[in-house]
Amino acid sequence: MSAIPEDFATTAARLSDAATRPFPASHKRYVTGSRPDIRVPMREIAQAPTATGTGAATGTEENPPIWVYDTSGPYTDPDVRVDLLRGLPDLRTAWIAERGDTEQLAGPTSEFGRRRQQDPRLAHLRFAHLRTPRRAQPGRRVTQMHYARRGEITPEMEYVAIREDLRLDALRADRRYEKLLRQQRGRSFGAELPDSITPEFVRDQVARGRAIIPANINHPELEPMIIGRNFRVKINTNIGNSATTSSIEEEVEKMVWSARWGGDTLMDLSTGKNIHETREWILRNAPMPIGTVPIYQALEKVKGRAEELTWEMFRDTLIEQAEQGVDYFTIHAGVLLRYIPLTAERVTGIVSRGGSIMAKWCLAHHRENFLYTHFAEICEIMAAYDVAFSLGDGLRPGSIADANDRAQFAELETLGELTRLAWEQDVQVMIEGPGHVPLQMIEENVTKELRDCFEAPFYTLGPLITDIAPAYDHITSGIGAANIGWYGTAMLCYVTPKEHLGLPSKQDVRDGIVTYKIAAHGADLAKGLPGAQVRDNALSKARFEFRWQDQFNLSLDPERAREFHDQTLPHDAHKVAHFCSMCGPHFCSMKITQDVRDYAQAHRLDDAEVALAAGMREKAEEFVKDGGKIYREV
Amino acid sequence: MSAIPEDFATTAARLSDAATRPFPASHKRYVTGSRPDIRVPMREIAQAPTATGTGAATGTEENPPIWVYDTSGPYTDPDVRVDLLRGLPDLRTAWIAERGDTEQLAGPTSEFGRRRQQDPRLAHLRFAHLRTPRRAQPGRRVTQMHYARRGEITPEMEYVAIREDLRLDALRADRRYEKLLRQQRGRSFGAELPDSITPEFVRDQVARGRAIIPANINHPELEPMIIGRNFRVKINTNIGNSATTSSIEEEVEKMVWSARWGGDTLMDLSTGKNIHETREWILRNAPMPIGTVPIYQALEKVKGRAEELTWEMFRDTLIEQAEQGVDYFTIHAGVLLRYIPLTAERVTGIVSRGGSIMAKWCLAHHRENFLYTHFAEICEIMAAYDVAFSLGDGLRPGSIADANDRAQFAELETLGELTRLAWEQDVQVMIEGPGHVPLQMIEENVTKELRDCFEAPFYTLGPLITDIAPAYDHITSGIGAANIGWYGTAMLCYVTPKEHLGLPSKQDVRDGIVTYKIAAHGADLAKGLPGAQVRDNALSKARFEFRWQDQFNLSLDPERAREFHDQTLPHDAHKVAHFCSMCGPHFCSMKITQDVRDYAQAHRLDDAEVALAAGMREKAEEFVKDGGKIYREV
Repeated sequence: MSAIPEDFATTAARLSDAATRPFPASHKRYVTGSRPDIRVPMREIAQAPTATGTGAATGTEENPPIWVYDTSGPYTDPDVRVDLLRGLPDLRTAWIAERGDTEQLAGPTSEFGRRRQQDPRLAHLRFAHLRTPRRAQPGRRVTQMHYARRGEITPEMEYVAIREDLRLDALRADRRYEKLLRQQRGRSFGAELPDSITPEFVRDQVARGRAIIPANINHPELEPMIIGRNFRVKINTNIGNSATTSSIEEEVEKMVWSARWGGDTLMDLSTGKNIHETREWILRNAPMPIGTVPIYQALEKVKGRAEELTWEMFRDTLIEQAEQGVDYFTIHAGVLLRYIPLTAERVTGIVSRGGSIMAKWCLAHHRENFLYTHFAEICEIMAAYDVAFSLGDGLRPGSIADANDRAQFAELETLGELTRLAWEQDVQVMIEGPGHVPLQMIEENVTKELRDCFEAPFYTLGPLITDIAPAYDHITSGIGAANIGWYGTAMLCYVTPKEHLGLPSKQDVRDGIVTYKIAAHGADLAKGLPGAQVRDNALSKARFEFRWQDQFNLSLDPERAREFHDQTLPHDAHKVAHFCSMCGPHFCSMKITQDVRDYAQAHRLDDAEVALAAGMREKAEEFVKDGGKIYREV
Repeated sequence: MSAIPEDFATTAARLSDAATRPFPASHKRYVTGSRPDIRVPMREIAQAPTATGTGAATGTEENPPIWVYDTSGPYTDPDVRVDLLRGLPDLRTAWIAERGDTEQLAGPTSEFGRRRQQDPRLAHLRFAHLRTPRRAQPGRRVTQMHYARRGEITPEMEYVAIREDLRLDALRADRRYEKLLRQQRGRSFGAELPDSITPEFVRDQVARGRAIIPANINHPELEPMIIGRNFRVKINTNIGNSATTSSIEEEVEKMVWSARWGGDTLMDLSTGKNIHETREWILRNAPMPIGTVPIYQALEKVKGRAEELTWEMFRDTLIEQAEQGVDYFTIHAGVLLRYIPLTAERVTGIVSRGGSIMAKWCLAHHRENFLYTHFAEICEIMAAYDVAFSLGDGLRPGSIADANDRAQFAELETLGELTRLAWEQDVQVMIEGPGHVPLQMIEENVTKELRDCFEAPFYTLGPLITDIAPAYDHITSGIGAANIGWYGTAMLCYVTPKEHLGLPSKQDVRDGIVTYKIAAHGADLAKGLPGAQVRDNALSKARFEFRWQDQFNLSLDPERAREFHDQTLPHDAHKVAHFCSMCGPHFCSMKITQDVRDYAQAHRLDDAEVALAAGMREKAEEFVKDGGKIYREV
């Protein structure tokens, strides 16, 4: 352990403060499933009671706690002391082992993985408590899809069912939630959102390929989650060092930070130094699925010369990463040689890194993309560790001028063909999507993806609805993301304000994540996901009742909400004041409305009166018809 | 002049720096109309040339300047020295005077206006160069709608036609713009966007009530603009002091700041001290239309006691403000007595300030809203100064739970009746809309508004698509705004990050405005507004060619784009570097794509080859059909 970089102690200390502090009024709760080791974390937000009545008739009305989906992992549990040097607790090894279809290897089977593990010069960077990897027994497939198709409900499936359901059935049986459960009717664009999420529903969706549970058998620290359009819309965040900046320490910190604010999955897009070691540190401490783009590391291995890439070294990279525990791989197997010239007349050519690497390789050799020609072999590797495909859109548009063009859609059609091949081997698949697409062209992307890729989950970057706002691309893309999520995208890849300009800071990551939580939640509401509106209703009720603390606590970013409030009204007294800074103490619409309600109640403006009032309507319309008479008061 | 608050000298000095500095590479240009005093400001953004070729064949390709709509007024014109103490140059008095239908009054005709002008205790606050007000001659109507219906094209109409058109015809005739003018096909939801904006088209739209040109005859400093769904989508910003904070100085500064970042109109929502004087300072320095909610000031006059409001004092307030030059009034005449009980069971009751004031008045007196019963008289006042109606949505939903409910839509129907009455007196009308509406319920708002209000321009606040993100409500509402703009809303009222929490800072105003410029532009692109995509295309081309400066300069916020870039790569050398911080010097997808293009060109991957490649498709499909054969390379 002496070789551990001293920096990590610092990181651990810092995490325990800013990144691991529980949110205000929030408690980590665990809902236990059919076996004691299925313990699903949720966040419970307590609320203050409402003061009711006036004068001698004052009283209180209880406001029940609100349960929200919790991505933050053990970091926000004060009962768990996370030691980054040891990694997170192992949740899933027993589940994996008892299936009896895997074997424990003696060590990494990839050549590169072995070399890195044995290199004494890397000792100071290496994660100290390495496990030996696990792999499917020969001829076995160990994917969630495989089990689902065999009719088996795995602990992972039960876990995500409980996680998605957020105790909705219990809430329905509890009178305190009756009004909070009222919800606007959704428009689902063909999504089939069940009234309750059951383990069997999860199994069915995974078996059909409509949803995936990315969960590599070598990532047992993972808290399982599901990606599919009949579940909550998820968001992915990206981190990663590059040749110019960033350290391991910073990347791990960003991962924890991402979990805190609501990232459901995380891609490590590192292209700089010590990619292998950075990834190990991230995986061992990550409660969420981790994705990578293996071609990035492969390119590093050939010093950036795309034409020197070979299938053999790429294969070794896949195994290296699969044995570390990466949960999904972006594979740009749809960038076919014949599609490349279709991009020549574009405004922004090929903007995907992976797409441009493969395009360069194809042209240099004038041969077909080796990811395509070796696709079946790739599937075999994925099936042996349960790594899910994120089939990359290497030809996605980099400007709205290039949206929905032939290059983009030709590749999408090929991704559909590859989806079928992957499914033949029980490998889970999601499909990546654009990019830059103006509002009116977004829906077509979803419609086509669902049709051509047989309803495999769509996973889109944004899309940005305009190109003219660098420094605000979390917003240009958040607009597109809310819409594409509504139409049926299962997971939204976040974009930070620094997109197109630089590497995101922690603050940028937070801005990007919260923006995408808004987009994802907006999509859930729009689709009509059962229970989605409870948090909105509770927060709006708190707002209307001047329960400022509850309003902050129920929000996506309680810390910033409070900070913004305090900039205008810093005194603690104002947190209970029945007014706010926008209107001041004597001029508040909410205060007046309360007066209106009191008046209405005092004067028995009840249903009968409403009916009477409605009866006045015809009379009023007479007045309107005759403009001359309108001076007369009703 | 000795009584002018010293602070103003400071403000003027500050404006000359941060708020009046021209944007980088930008020049204020004026396009002259049919008469020399029609001089329409635009911003021209210069671009650097593109380096082409390699080795001995290097050259440059010219990139033409990009013209953008300019709301910033004379403040960004280095040839104009704005003196806030004197106000902006008078652009329109000659146009107004030569119509011969107005009279110059000796002084304010409102009682309150006279009192304030004569009060010696206010001398130190008073704008020094007050003009005497102008009013329609008895029996005359001096509205743009009146002239339009008579078939007259006013200088204001010609001005907005030139302004909207942004030299599009000239660009079409210029070969350099050929590629930049290519645009995705829009989906207009019934908007009828002409290929070129002509003065006659403007006149026609104003005559039909489909568009308004808010332009009070007492606001001659105004640079005319138009609000209608067949034109660019506009954005409104709000400023205003309140009882708890803010000074005149700050409000004027915010107005200039709003103009700089792109606010098309501005509402002064002051509810604090010296509302009258603050408004005068704002109007005299405002290049954009100014709107108010007169009931706010009326309520101040009765010390916040809504039940003491009377028609007489409200009428005096309307005249007071009309004679100062306010261009549009929010009037909550649709809050009818019989609709009020419809809000009693809502989650958030009545959240509009104006709505709650009128509701309180109605219930206190159990009489019909005096704004409704005196509506025809209000119209007479509006017609005498050309103040446009912004018919307020006093019963708009304050939470998504209350969206599209009976209270909201009942009021909207009444606003339609009032629209007809206003039009009978040639008064221009726009209709205010919500508020808080989940994504799937937004379109219905527009459909219903267009039908029930006879296509009068819709002017909406947001809407916010979820309630759970205070501190990020510029984003929750920006998503709704882009959508509602696409469906046909003519103007979007911005929301800042501080909405629901506190009063916005200058930074919040900038964030809110840029977010809404994104939403409005996204809507323009989605509708297919001719020429809307030129700026996107130019910026994307610059991005792809690593013209970093041009990318910054063409963006909505060049200053922040540059600042964000510099946080990662601060050296000036990087502004011309052919890579960016995300990937580093040896790993850049754009660089690789350029290599791909060069290769494609060198190897003559021309159209014939594309056709040949396409021919390979069937062969490839054979491979795919048979998973076993896919190992073979094409």
